[in-house]
Amino acid sequence: MIKGDLLYEGKAKRLYATENEDVLYVAYKDSATAFNGEKKAEIGGKGILNNKITTILFEQLKKYGIESHFIEQISENEQLVKKVEIIPLEVVVRNIAAGSLSKRLGMAEGTPLKKPIVEFYFKDDDLGDPLLTNAHLELLEIASPVEIDTLQTMALEVNQVLRPIFSDIGVTLVDFKLEFGKTTDGAILLADEISPDTCRLWDKETNKKLDKDVFRRNLGSLTEVYEIILSRLGGLSK
Amino acid sequence: MIKGDLLYEGKAKRLYATENEDVLYVAYKDSATAFNGEKKAEIGGKGILNNKITTILFEQLKKYGIESHFIEQISENEQLVKKVEIIPLEVVVRNIAAGSLSKRLGMAEGTPLKKPIVEFYFKDDDLGDPLLTNAHLELLEIASPVEIDTLQTMALEVNQVLRPIFSDIGVTLVDFKLEFGKTTDGAILLADEISPDTCRLWDKETNKKLDKDVFRRNLGSLTEVYEIILSRLGGLSK
Ligand SMILES: Nc1ncnc2c1ncn2[C@@H]1O[C@H](COP(=O)(O)OP(=O)(O)OP(=O)(O)O)[C@@H](O)[C@H]1O
Ligand SMILES: Nc1ncnc2c1ncn2[C@@H]1O[C@H](COP(=O)(O)OP(=O)(O)OP(=O)(O)O)[C@@H](O)[C@H]1O
Ligand SMILES: [Mg+2]
Ligand SMILES: [Mg+2]
Repeated sequence: MIKGDLLYEGKAKRLYATENEDVLYVAYKDSATAFNGEKKAEIGGKGILNNKITTILFEQLKKYGIESHFIEQISENEQLVKKVEIIPLEVVVRNIAAGSLSKRLGMAEGTPLKKPIVEFYFKDDDLGDPLLTNAHLELLEIASPVEIDTLQTMALEVNQVLRPIFSDIGVTLVDFKLEFGKTTDGAILLADEISPDTCRLWDKETNKKLDKDVFRRNLGSLTEVYEIILSRLGGLSK
Repeated sequence: MIKGDLLYEGKAKRLYATENEDVLYVAYKDSATAFNGEKKAEIGGKGILNNKITTILFEQLKKYGIESHFIEQISENEQLVKKVEIIPLEVVVRNIAAGSLSKRLGMAEGTPLKKPIVEFYFKDDDLGDPLLTNAHLELLEIASPVEIDTLQTMALEVNQVLRPIFSDIGVTLVDFKLEFGKTTDGAILLADEISPDTCRLWDKETNKKLDKDVFRRNLGSLTEVYEIILSRLGGLSK
């Protein structure tokens, strides 16, 4: 595949065209951002780590019957994906209270939820990615009620697959954010990335944070903990 | 009825016991507060206006078959109500985008919604009355899913009654907040107040704000616009 024009540069990835109009070239960047872009840093090695972790997780999901945009990893920090039209929603699954849920509901971080919940946020940086209720979703017509149901079901299925994968390597999957897109034939596909940038991952024994909260809250070296995740997933040699 | 012990003092009302343990004495205060209590003022006459307006609206709702906690007005700024255990939710109905909905969804104030929507906020000053989704409501167990459905239905019914009442007096009912409570036998009853403190009311001709936004946004005399509402509702002589 030829890396063509830069189509879009986000906070964490660059998207390039290829000679196949249904395929994109994704290059993972070393940038770290938090608080809607207010906090920023360049962290050498982060792009490679996230590319490799996302690759492993999308491959695992595929084994368990969950398709995604992922095609193949093509270099240390690059992968090929199917081009989709991203649905402007951040679909968040939570198993344990943390972050904004803890603040919103006054629940101590670490409180297990009696069952996993799904939240939808409007993917709109200018509005600060606001939480949406079903009524808002209907009003905005971002997706039909049937599509919202599909997103919810798919997100919970991803959770069902990822939880034991992380548990087996001594990591608690606290919460994570997914993005979905539509292919040209209207099918809904899991897209974007699944990495410590987009998940809360806690060491099962020590509760040590092994995710982007290390950057958000200045808890030490980000790449050190991302490497722990990659290595436990068996991906250090890739 | 004898006005007994002060049971609770809120930002807008005082609740007193009576000799009947199922009945409360409500005294409307002249205090105005906004932004979760950050902005405050004493505004002479406000308590009387809200007491009278709430009385008229609860009486009208009753005519249309919607029961509330309201029993009777007993003085210029006091009324008797049935005591309930308040469900800690602010149930907001919106017909037109304004306030926090405009901010959340990036919709210009005044944009009509294609159908009325209901939002639930957690009535918790410390948490800043956060918006709740159905998943949060289930998690918090503040009310059962069936009860949430009941609240939603009742709120939309109140809207169906109030909209034409306001329209007939040249006022657009933009949005409003309701509170509900449970009686000792478990029935859900509309409670609290319905006044320009808890509604957005715009003059149909001029779009002039006739509600607490006059205080929130420093748009002039609050009592002047509350008096317009009371007088148009036919309540100036009461
Ligand atoms: N398969 C795909 N097809 C098209 N776009 C995709 C695909 N997968 C992910 N994207 C989009 O790629 C963009 C770049 O990703 P990145 O994570 O850098 O963005 P971001 O800065 O987090 O968010 P955004 O730029 O969207 O506000 C995102 O907008 C993401 O939604
Ligand atoms: N029928 C009722 N029985 C018991 N409590 C009621 C009833 N109707 C209203 N209340 C409660 O009376 C309290 C006082 O009202 P007020 O509007 O002053 O409170 P607030 O300051 O707005 O809110 P709060 O004090 O609850 O944070 C509120 O907590 C309200 O929920
Ligand atoms: Mg991103
Ligand atoms: Mg009140």
